[in-house]
Amino acid sequence: MRKLVIAGSLLLASSLGWSQSKSLSGFKEPDVRKEFDLESTFDGYLTAANIDSGIRIMSARPHHVGSPGDKAVVDYIYSKFKSWGYDARVETFYVPFPTPKERLLEMTGPTTFKATLAEKPLKEDATSGQTSEQLPTYNCWSPDGDVTGELVFVNYGIPEDYDYLERLGISVKGKIVIAKYGRSWRGIKPKVAQEHGAIGCLIYSDPKDDGYFEGDVYPKGAFKNEYGVQRGSVLDMPIYPGDPLTPGIGATKDAKRLDRSEATTLLKIPVLPISYHDAEPLLRALDGPVAPPDWRGALPFTYHIGPGKAHVHLKLAFNWDMKELHDVIAKLPGSEFPDEWVIRGNHHDGWVNGAGDPISGQSAMLEEARAVSLLVKSGWKPKRTIVYCAWDGEEPGLLGSTEWVEEHAAELQKKAVVYINSDGNGRGFLGVEGSHALEPFINEVARDVIDPETQISVADRMHSRELVNAANNGRLKKDLLAKKPFTIGALGSGSDYSPFLQHLGIPSFNLGFGGEDPGGEYHSIYDSYDDYRRFKDPSFQYGVALAKTAGRTTLRIADAALLPFDFRALYKTINGYAADLMTEVDQLRETTALTNQLLKENQYGYGTDTALHLMPPATKEEVPYLNFSSLQNALGGLEKVVNRLADTLAKSKWSGSGEDAVNQALYRAEQQLLSDNGLPRRPWYRHSIYAPGFYTGYGVKTLPGIREAIEQRNWKEAQEQIEIDAAVLKKFADYLGSIALQ
Amino acid sequence: MRKLVIAGSLLLASSLGWSQSKSLSGFKEPDVRKEFDLESTFDGYLTAANIDSGIRIMSARPHHVGSPGDKAVVDYIYSKFKSWGYDARVETFYVPFPTPKERLLEMTGPTTFKATLAEKPLKEDATSGQTSEQLPTYNCWSPDGDVTGELVFVNYGIPEDYDYLERLGISVKGKIVIAKYGRSWRGIKPKVAQEHGAIGCLIYSDPKDDGYFEGDVYPKGAFKNEYGVQRGSVLDMPIYPGDPLTPGIGATKDAKRLDRSEATTLLKIPVLPISYHDAEPLLRALDGPVAPPDWRGALPFTYHIGPGKAHVHLKLAFNWDMKELHDVIAKLPGSEFPDEWVIRGNHHDGWVNGAGDPISGQSAMLEEARAVSLLVKSGWKPKRTIVYCAWDGEEPGLLGSTEWVEEHAAELQKKAVVYINSDGNGRGFLGVEGSHALEPFINEVARDVIDPETQISVADRMHSRELVNAANNGRLKKDLLAKKPFTIGALGSGSDYSPFLQHLGIPSFNLGFGGEDPGGEYHSIYDSYDDYRRFKDPSFQYGVALAKTAGRTTLRIADAALLPFDFRALYKTINGYAADLMTEVDQLRETTALTNQLLKENQYGYGTDTALHLMPPATKEEVPYLNFSSLQNALGGLEKVVNRLADTLAKSKWSGSGEDAVNQALYRAEQQLLSDNGLPRRPWYRHSIYAPGFYTGYGVKTLPGIREAIEQRNWKEAQEQIEIDAAVLKKFADYLGSIALQ
Repeated sequence: MRKLVIAGSLLLASSLGWSQSKSLSGFKEPDVRKEFDLESTFDGYLTAANIDSGIRIMSARPHHVGSPGDKAVVDYIYSKFKSWGYDARVETFYVPFPTPKERLLEMTGPTTFKATLAEKPLKEDATSGQTSEQLPTYNCWSPDGDVTGELVFVNYGIPEDYDYLERLGISVKGKIVIAKYGRSWRGIKPKVAQEHGAIGCLIYSDPKDDGYFEGDVYPKGAFKNEYGVQRGSVLDMPIYPGDPLTPGIGATKDAKRLDRSEATTLLKIPVLPISYHDAEPLLRALDGPVAPPDWRGALPFTYHIGPGKAHVHLKLAFNWDMKELHDVIAKLPGSEFPDEWVIRGNHHDGWVNGAGDPISGQSAMLEEARAVSLLVKSGWKPKRTIVYCAWDGEEPGLLGSTEWVEEHAAELQKKAVVYINSDGNGRGFLGVEGSHALEPFINEVARDVIDPETQISVADRMHSRELVNAANNGRLKKDLLAKKPFTIGALGSGSDYSPFLQHLGIPSFNLGFGGEDPGGEYHSIYDSYDDYRRFKDPSFQYGVALAKTAGRTTLRIADAALLPFDFRALYKTINGYAADLMTEVDQLRETTALTNQLLKENQYGYGTDTALHLMPPATKEEVPYLNFSSLQNALGGLEKVVNRLADTLAKSKWSGSGEDAVNQALYRAEQQLLSDNGLPRRPWYRHSIYAPGFYTGYGVKTLPGIREAIEQRNWKEAQEQIEIDAAVLKKFADYLGSIALQ
Repeated sequence: MRKLVIAGSLLLASSLGWSQSKSLSGFKEPDVRKEFDLESTFDGYLTAANIDSGIRIMSARPHHVGSPGDKAVVDYIYSKFKSWGYDARVETFYVPFPTPKERLLEMTGPTTFKATLAEKPLKEDATSGQTSEQLPTYNCWSPDGDVTGELVFVNYGIPEDYDYLERLGISVKGKIVIAKYGRSWRGIKPKVAQEHGAIGCLIYSDPKDDGYFEGDVYPKGAFKNEYGVQRGSVLDMPIYPGDPLTPGIGATKDAKRLDRSEATTLLKIPVLPISYHDAEPLLRALDGPVAPPDWRGALPFTYHIGPGKAHVHLKLAFNWDMKELHDVIAKLPGSEFPDEWVIRGNHHDGWVNGAGDPISGQSAMLEEARAVSLLVKSGWKPKRTIVYCAWDGEEPGLLGSTEWVEEHAAELQKKAVVYINSDGNGRGFLGVEGSHALEPFINEVARDVIDPETQISVADRMHSRELVNAANNGRLKKDLLAKKPFTIGALGSGSDYSPFLQHLGIPSFNLGFGGEDPGGEYHSIYDSYDDYRRFKDPSFQYGVALAKTAGRTTLRIADAALLPFDFRALYKTINGYAADLMTEVDQLRETTALTNQLLKENQYGYGTDTALHLMPPATKEEVPYLNFSSLQNALGGLEKVVNRLADTLAKSKWSGSGEDAVNQALYRAEQQLLSDNGLPRRPWYRHSIYAPGFYTGYGVKTLPGIREAIEQRNWKEAQEQIEIDAAVLKKFADYLGSIALQ
């Protein structure tokens, strides 16, 4: 790697003491003032009415992949971008997209019951009656299947639930499991059931987690009524997202495809989501042990685990036709660095009408793009190219984004400065997850966006919430009161940032408002305009707030003289993850040893109610001491480099003109965190710091190679992954050093 | 106080290294061996069959105060004691005991509904159909009343629930409240409702806490079915227990009585307990704000708070006739110290059939007494007098025990060495609460009783449970594994020890097994023999275990050469309470200051969802620094004295013969912890260390004078109570010093 020369005349605003004493990383005077003025003009262009009408129009019909409604939304978005002067095009990919042909769920004993498998149209919800265009309730990518067996209730269907079943002597082999939605991404439930030998899987929404226990049900209130069903993908996305037939490459017309049987992300057992109306008779019919307290939901009977009495028959058949995906890609060329791309995206496909998910985010993004186009009309031009992306096929498995990223991987690794994602949006608090080198930068953005409800900054409001939560939970401490920069969450999966960040190492954000918009409409026919305007963001002002937040993020990165990466924040974050891991291994070692001693002394036998017939947990292999020194040394080296780089950048006079070589080095730095072989058993995931959990799905695992090996008690692999991550961090430090050292 | 001389020739077993290396506090060789032999003989006399038949016989009919069944049980117990050679008598007191004449609960709007107010007889429960003798479902000591008003759901009806209602702007003034059973003793709920201006109070059993959420309902399982109702007293026992008309004196025939209107322990608003079958339509009819998560139960709808839509009419009238209480008192005179009494008690009255509460404990006590009588027949005699007491009227308010204690107060303060209480008993783990000077002693008892399920000692089993609980909750730590003496809980209220301990300062224990006998039969018609033998202690072996435990406790104290008081354990406990209090005040000061700062900064306004319409909490007066020095100095003095006393006693050669003056000084020591004026606003409670909480009812408050003043933020009173408790502790230390210093 060649060493990069830092030159020019940049003076950072922060070191100049800007007149309003507000820093703006990456800008120098007088550009700081100009940037704030630009953003103020930008804000003035944004209207809630446009976001309202955008949601209404785009959610007017069901618009899942391959549907006429999907095409209508694509045409609408495309025509909007075109009308605003963007260089817009529709990029098409070709993917299988299974839709139901036959769905049958019945109880055959001890009593008979046939599940309705239908959500009810409501007069209070104008689009809920569009039954002819709606996708039935199903889990996308379930295989065809026709199974009959005893039913077993498996709580949330996550690995620890099966540990408990084992202690009860209950096997799900040859049986059909019923799991509650929650605690994991849905696809984990059938995957784990399948690993344990189950032949079918039902997933239902318990009213405790998603229904009347939480609040009044739709249409009186926002929460899930007894007929509501959460559709959703069960593609094994922790292996790889996107088209299951074209891992790693774009699903273009002529792409080389796997046979469906070869796709490792497809389940082998049929799975179906059901409502609590349909689940109730099945659960009521179970006998066997009473479910332990944290397994119980809010249905009005005693939850039992089974198996035995209750037998069910599940028959599913799907149409596996190929469908077209339509990504709308709209570019605004950069005036100085057209080959540096600030990419902003939100998907457009919904499971049904999708007013909240994804249209609320899509409509806010369009309003943002419209305002940007007005800035252009007023004479401004971005230094870097801005690329708006409206993705198709996010719902079945990040299809549109993944195929596009895979297709354009080489170009993106050169040009992509950042990927800024949003998805469904609602009333409440700003949520930010992303690349930690941009944590200080996004703090500045949140400082400058005003919350529509309280008229304080959205950053201050995050702080207020933290204080109130601490006060409500009796955890209020003095050090909480002093406002500090907020930390941002790490990205797992669940929306279109995954291919950018985790496959290509492109710095990414996921932005959105929420927390004051709870409800049960997710992936149901009730995620409608009528629901949205009553319960999610009635004034549409949080759509405006999202446009302001993502818009500032986009504009500042597009125009920064020096890109606002601060690798000290990233170092600090990784170092924290490593410290956590070391503590966790020590705790696991102690817990394992102590538990084994309890087992040896028969303390479980003595201390457990014999009436529970609960066997002690299995004895586990003792935890060895792992050698973390290579990781610690790599982190020690990294710390020095990031501090030196920060000093150098602060003192530099970089003008941001010419080749922009330093900025290119900065935005490509995160790619150095990719490992050559990716994560064990899932090479598509190459980021060494962030990945969705193999057994959590959406939930992030940081330093995933090491962490998951430890969690799986695979000590050999854990040691290997420590060495791999240490090498990656060393490579990363060397790379950053080549920027710092002239 | 005169100084006592320690003399004689006692050699403590512990310092001798007894052949089985088991210490036995207070005994010297060869008495240690003899005592163990005696206990072994005693154990051999105990049979589960007798406990079984005792429960069957005494629970055959409803036997509440004043009923024919009560008299039959009294006759049975009396005749048993007589037949075993005890000096038995029935002592009678005269008390009002209200029973229902009229009970009406109806909803008058928005729909109409009339509550059934009846538990259903079941064919699976032989005694449940004895409707003519059963007391209807009611709360004893509710006043007559006829009220109509809007209904408000107040969660558990404890003070913090009203704080939350205030934040919602909801007042219960002029309204009828409905509260869940749980989180406080039931009498607190109407008391707090009344303080807030409510005109009536309903208490119901939510299936989340007491019903199908927990497990299968009766008769399939043990848990409360939809018709089950918890009867119970709502006498304001935290003021004083016992007959409301004769506080402080025995309710003998000619006692001077208050007028009912003068009794401070009687409520002013009508209160009625109902089933979840009857509560469901009322709660369903509520509107207003949705109840917050921890208020919600397991009924299948969204819990609202009201008020507004739902109106209820509650009409109650009672028969306030005077009834007779019959305490059976059976004495076995001490051979050496007949004027030193080891008192062992359990009540005999039930709300209905009361197989579990109290007959399971009563039957075990009778079996214990029978075995003791067989020891006597074999030639053994206790050194001290053993007094068995079967109390009447515990359920309405510890009536029988309190009146007896008040009547015999002077004699008891001279003669009572210890009071050993039990009550309902079941399968599981030993529970011990009591006077901490006897904590080391009761550890030895628990060490020597074998658990019938696991064949390890009941002390070891307590330790196993602690380990398993810690393991299940992820709190397993190395230091837990080393077995240490267990600590015992402090006594609040809820059974007949209160007058002994808290009014007279007599060292007390409450003993019982449980934790593997959950169910919903408490105070209902289903607390029957059929229920008991299926779900509570099917083998009746835990009845035997209770007889062994309480029997050993009784026998050892009756025969000890040197009474096994160890005031180091008491000092350590009190010192811990004081340290906790000081920490709590500091934390309260910090929390108050921080919360006030949040309020000043409007952080609640910024950080709370505006849709909740939740006002910030009220600003609270800042917490001053209290002067704990007098208490700390008193504790410092006490520490020296208890260590010196322990040394002196260990070295002494006390024979336990003659006047027994040292032992008398030891057993009367706890009386020095009584304060002259008792607790503020409730002078009946005189113990400075232990009291039931004014706002918890059964739940203990340690150092109650100080603690409750702090909790009520009454700083002046807190400082006064610190000085009072310091003076009490100084007096106590001086007293102990007079034993230690010859």
